Amino acid sequence: MYIHEITKPDGRNLTLYSRRPIARNIGPSLLSAPSEGINPHLRWHPLRGEWVAYAAYRQGRTFLPPPEYNPFAPSADPRNPTELPTGDYDIAVFDNRFPTLTSAAHNPPQSIVVTRPAKGHCEVVVFTQDPQGSLGGLPLDHIELLLQVWGHRTEMLSAAKQVQYVLPFENRGVEVGVTLHHPHGQIYGYPMVPPVPQRINDNEIAHFGTTGRPLLQDLIAAELAHGERVIYQGNHAIAFVPAWARYPYEVWIAPVEAAPYLSALRSEQREDLARALKTVLLKYDKLWQRPFPYLMAWYQAPTDKRPHPESHLHAEFYPPYRTRDKLKYLAGTELAAGLFANDTLPEDTARELRSVEVIF
Amino acid sequence: MYIHEITKPDGRNLTLYSRRPIARNIGPSLLSAPSEGINPHLRWHPLRGEWVAYAAYRQGRTFLPPPEYNPFAPSADPRNPTELPTGDYDIAVFDNRFPTLTSAAHNPPQSIVVTRPAKGHCEVVVFTQDPQGSLGGLPLDHIELLLQVWGHRTEMLSAAKQVQYVLPFENRGVEVGVTLHHPHGQIYGYPMVPPVPQRINDNEIAHFGTTGRPLLQDLIAAELAHGERVIYQGNHAIAFVPAWARYPYEVWIAPVEAAPYLSALRSEQREDLARALKTVLLKYDKLWQRPFPYLMAWYQAPTDKRPHPESHLHAEFYPPYRTRDKLKYLAGTELAAGLFANDTLPEDTARELRSVEVIF
Repeated sequence: MYIHEITKPDGRNLTLYSRRPIARNIGPSLLSAPSEGINPHLRWHPLRGEWVAYAAYRQGRTFLPPPEYNPFAPSADPRNPTELPTGDYDIAVFDNRFPTLTSAAHNPPQSIVVTRPAKGHCEVVVFTQDPQGSLGGLPLDHIELLLQVWGHRTEMLSAAKQVQYVLPFENRGVEVGVTLHHPHGQIYGYPMVPPVPQRINDNEIAHFGTTGRPLLQDLIAAELAHGERVIYQGNHAIAFVPAWARYPYEVWIAPVEAAPYLSALRSEQREDLARALKTVLLKYDKLWQRPFPYLMAWYQAPTDKRPHPESHLHAEFYPPYRTRDKLKYLAGTELAAGLFANDTLPEDTARELRSVEVIF
Repeated sequence: MYIHEITKPDGRNLTLYSRRPIARNIGPSLLSAPSEGINPHLRWHPLRGEWVAYAAYRQGRTFLPPPEYNPFAPSADPRNPTELPTGDYDIAVFDNRFPTLTSAAHNPPQSIVVTRPAKGHCEVVVFTQDPQGSLGGLPLDHIELLLQVWGHRTEMLSAAKQVQYVLPFENRGVEVGVTLHHPHGQIYGYPMVPPVPQRINDNEIAHFGTTGRPLLQDLIAAELAHGERVIYQGNHAIAFVPAWARYPYEVWIAPVEAAPYLSALRSEQREDLARALKTVLLKYDKLWQRPFPYLMAWYQAPTDKRPHPESHLHAEFYPPYRTRDKLKYLAGTELAAGLFANDTLPEDTARELRSVEVIF
């Protein structure tokens, strides 16, 4: 992995990654963030017991611009500035122009509830220079590079002392609110362990305390023994519709053997994870012969410098469709109660996805 | 409140409610539920530590039928059977034809995770016989009746021993997945306290233990003292954009003095809550001069027969729009991490809603 770090004229970080050496003369890109008004804050929700982030300036962010105004397309034209410079590289990571969390946050407003600056990091990860591409369409070694990039970003962000948790994710498709179609994802570096990863880690710690084994590793062994819901099985990685899927067509991807962080993966694990990821993405797109929208999130251990033998890195996919033409809406029971109602059986969606053949 | 209970030919319960005496000769309606295949189950999600409900037969449920085929329109025509009989009544409650939870659930499948029958109740509440109406358009005493009905259903469902929590809610608008436009809501009676109400109750118990006062009652006193976010203020009820709002245009409605259940409200509290509810609904619809979509949920105390002096009944509204023409999508940080990012400030949306004048 080759890395080239650049500081943009507005002070934001830009890091280029490549499978090949990167020319050192690639300069910064020219699109600038608003110079003021970026000052998000957090407020404490006393009844749910969780933080809420307020970033009112995000209302003005870029929303489905026409193709000739793609801020993620590399540009060397000062009349048409974008986020990325031209040059030979594979993946670019830079600070979000409209961050929900930023190290620059300061002086939160007083309120009747506890407030604090919304410290942290919001990064954009552009997967490829090709605006028409897709993550699943990239070559295996490009996807492997992305797994390395996510690992590197996790290390870089956890070195910043405010960051307690690093979440790489991709929102794909207008159905999940994507504002730009150029293949990209995001990374949030949180100043706390957010509620969902905290609950996951609590359950992992409890199981490890009882059994001495990582919880998800035991569950994966059970999925492999059962077999019916497995979508991809390699020597080091697995993709499966979990027996406890909350969304129709939900899929999880994980190394078979627990690892706490993307940066902790051995090369053979990373290689097989890339194969599992590409398999799932191609199956999704082939299922209904069209780009399949989803939210993909990579769960890791908290970045608190403590060992996490209980933690098992994995990706979860939440697709918004429950059938080819019907969306699954999150409504009363999901959003208000927190009990998900799944109108499909994991065994049935797994059968569908298993039957989709992909070759690469 | 007048009540008339009927058993449908397929065994489902139907209860009619009215401000006036109900003729005893109103018969059952004729639409029947599928006679078999209704057998939902729950599976334990080991990482999140919560139950997930599986009800695969719900894929076939009614989806935006044309107006001439409205299953909630009263009908006495056996060639066009619907859920409701004709006659003079205001509100009807009946068992959902396609329940996610039902007392008939039995023999859950074996799985690699813990399973159990999805016991419980799913009821439909038809707010009015008028298919073109809306909750906010109903007369105040009709809305008061609805608050009484929700209270009565809470008592009836909590008398069933499997029900640990009763949640009345309304999904309004195609944006939140509504499948039928006739004004109606739902009530879920859960066989456990679901994750969100459990967290709320945990925080309420902690605050009560420290201060001897209900948490939300203290927060409401602070909102009233602050004033800026208050949308409606009566002698017994309040509507406000909470300082900790997660959604743009989120509004809460509550009695000023804590009460654990809708059935525990005194008549003057119920009367003022109806006025607060009507005010909020009319402001919502007038804001952008069109029906305003939302999820409305009424949080109560767990129905475990224990006293709940810490608990404070209230409604929360989650609107799907962040501006007049932009939806707020729940994506990476909300769904995967559980940290909500709100692109509006509660003070700003409260100002907008306060400036909308409504008269009734």
